[in-house]
Amino acid sequence: MSDKIRIGLAGLGTVGATVASRLLQGAVPRAKLVAVSARDAKKDRGVDLSAIDFVADPLALVSHPDVDVIIELIGGESGTALDLVEAALKAGKPVVTANKAMLAAHAAALSDLSVGGNVPLAFEAAVAGGIPVIKTVREGLAGNDITRLCGILNGTCNYILSRMEAAGLSFADALKEAQELGFAEADPTLDVSGADAGQKLAILSALAYGVAPDMDNISVTGIEAVTAADIAFAEEFDSVIRLVGTAARVGAGSNGGVYHSVEPVLVKKSQALAQVLNELNALSITAEPLGAVMLQGPGAGGGATASAVLADIADIAAGFGRPLFDVAVSEMTESASQNAPASEYYIRLALADRPGSMAKATQILAENGVSIEEVVQRSSESDDSYLPVVFITHQTENASLNAALAALEKQSEICNAVLALPVFAD
Amino acid sequence: MSDKIRIGLAGLGTVGATVASRLLQGAVPRAKLVAVSARDAKKDRGVDLSAIDFVADPLALVSHPDVDVIIELIGGESGTALDLVEAALKAGKPVVTANKAMLAAHAAALSDLSVGGNVPLAFEAAVAGGIPVIKTVREGLAGNDITRLCGILNGTCNYILSRMEAAGLSFADALKEAQELGFAEADPTLDVSGADAGQKLAILSALAYGVAPDMDNISVTGIEAVTAADIAFAEEFDSVIRLVGTAARVGAGSNGGVYHSVEPVLVKKSQALAQVLNELNALSITAEPLGAVMLQGPGAGGGATASAVLADIADIAAGFGRPLFDVAVSEMTESASQNAPASEYYIRLALADRPGSMAKATQILAENGVSIEEVVQRSSESDDSYLPVVFITHQTENASLNAALAALEKQSEICNAVLALPVFAD
Repeated sequence: MSDKIRIGLAGLGTVGATVASRLLQGAVPRAKLVAVSARDAKKDRGVDLSAIDFVADPLALVSHPDVDVIIELIGGESGTALDLVEAALKAGKPVVTANKAMLAAHAAALSDLSVGGNVPLAFEAAVAGGIPVIKTVREGLAGNDITRLCGILNGTCNYILSRMEAAGLSFADALKEAQELGFAEADPTLDVSGADAGQKLAILSALAYGVAPDMDNISVTGIEAVTAADIAFAEEFDSVIRLVGTAARVGAGSNGGVYHSVEPVLVKKSQALAQVLNELNALSITAEPLGAVMLQGPGAGGGATASAVLADIADIAAGFGRPLFDVAVSEMTESASQNAPASEYYIRLALADRPGSMAKATQILAENGVSIEEVVQRSSESDDSYLPVVFITHQTENASLNAALAALEKQSEICNAVLALPVFAD
Repeated sequence: MSDKIRIGLAGLGTVGATVASRLLQGAVPRAKLVAVSARDAKKDRGVDLSAIDFVADPLALVSHPDVDVIIELIGGESGTALDLVEAALKAGKPVVTANKAMLAAHAAALSDLSVGGNVPLAFEAAVAGGIPVIKTVREGLAGNDITRLCGILNGTCNYILSRMEAAGLSFADALKEAQELGFAEADPTLDVSGADAGQKLAILSALAYGVAPDMDNISVTGIEAVTAADIAFAEEFDSVIRLVGTAARVGAGSNGGVYHSVEPVLVKKSQALAQVLNELNALSITAEPLGAVMLQGPGAGGGATASAVLADIADIAAGFGRPLFDVAVSEMTESASQNAPASEYYIRLALADRPGSMAKATQILAENGVSIEEVVQRSSESDDSYLPVVFITHQTENASLNAALAALEKQSEICNAVLALPVFAD
């Protein structure tokens, strides 16, 4: 083995090409690119790879005698990416990956191989792109008890919400703009549904709390139901709407655990998360004895993701690689709670434009123990028979909220189109 | 040696007591507190140290047979703290310190010992308290070329400026309030002069660029000259004033280098740094290929500083300690530039309240190549014979600005009380 670690890189899309280019420039002095694999050997990627060994089969990188470390940038939850990573770990070769879908879906098997075999599996690029959130949660806050993680973990959703806010666009128009600019996929479901943010939250929670990743433990609501009217109402409360992934310690003792949610949240403009605009990502971490820190930056894109991959390579090259989550998923003992903590809520209804509607709606809220702090109703310029009304509640138990919402939805003659969003708490 | 690293802790102030308490709770599983040293063995610090060896002389921790790692929380640029750290490094015992003044003043000697002997000297707590800026710059952005660091590195100044802004206080009243709340020392000179932020910037720049720390290379201006009127004018430009420490690559080739400044800066409210309020600190890092990331959080206080110390202990316990700056200061080759980059400027004058004053002032600016983008003049309710005027300039070379300011200051009949602040660039 030479005194530099020798890199085999699988996947030469934008991220892979940037990583290759930086490695060839000597950006990580102790690492050397020796072999690459991609579908098309001939494609011009803006980087001269003529001196680098090209292998058609990514798995051949694992058996390649000159390759010490595998970089997996193929993508996909299973298939070749998973085969490659498993083969590398079994061969004792450290892995760097940006593949959050694979990590979230196969955390247990991969951690058995990585932790069990004490083979580094680095994944900074899998969450929040270029922002060093994995390093911060695992290393920068070592010695703390983390009590809450709140993140803007999906740049597509944040772009759409920011543009609805800044330009008064509808969800559909903002989505279309995001697609035209490359901030959203042709099929945006994985992003706008909150599923992508949920995968990232599962990975963060495994690291921060030792909760075994399981998407079934995460309450996920996307941004599809947020309307231009909601954005305008939020403005009246000096707030914006953000898709926030939260993993927070709740309860205590046998009732204790970590509650996970990804959902649109009403955020006061004075909060740092409200200032995170467009395609940026952010993570706010509350911990004892630290207090709260927030990191923000580019959560996607070739340069940002490449930056995280290079940092992982540098750690491994320095001999400071770490196994996935440090602890095997099968050994994780922290429980996920299904009990949403009490919160203030933003409740938007459409109320029938006739006497008694408001009285009935407020009576239903009161009967279910939901106490109102603020109300805004605006007359409509159209001749709609339903008018939008927004309530901001006092602190409300989630069960009370759900009972109130169910009761309201039965009153189809006086109200429809109900949306409830938690209000972000400091 | 046991399988845990054994800690000797010198200094039991707020930070030291918090670190001791967390170590005794097992917050760093691979570390064990075995010995402490402080002036007063008997003082109640809210933590039971009765089972821990107490030594009166901090230097005795180095020769203590059960101590593997020294935590220096004594403070002070030289004296006992320096003696302790040097003795520990000479003995090959890793050190964790929060002592920015010592590091800035004795960087060369300490790096010779640490890098030369390959003994870890960890200092996360020395810059920006609990925010993991050292780890982010060194590890999280490894593989990047850093082009600019901009930080709010002094919580006292940020508190004062935030309070002037929020409550319309004068500098003197905001300082007094900060002192009453414990955010400023009885003698606030080191903070309000910008010197403290300068020390932190020197440490960051050594790490990010490899510039040997030297306070003479940093252009330092404090916040003492910022008035309530400046804060009000800033508001008219939808901006705030922040004390910003900047280390930025300027020029190229033999004219290239890193320019260092600590000074009050006009920051648009839409910029993330403007949202950093009160005693918080922040660091914005621009790098290639990453883009820009920003970290914010508590820059001081027992819990925040203890958090950083604990993270350093955890790294050393995991075998991942690193020597000071990785490279010895004597080997650092990057040069510090004295050439301030071109900038837009905020120029505040007091102009004589008589015909021709404004014409003369604008003529002087024009003659010196300073082009004006915006002007605000307000009539005064008092009967002052001088009225404040503010110009925002177009991009201006620093030499042109200085020539214009010198010429204006000679015109004592038409103008006095000149203040120029750079406008923060994205």
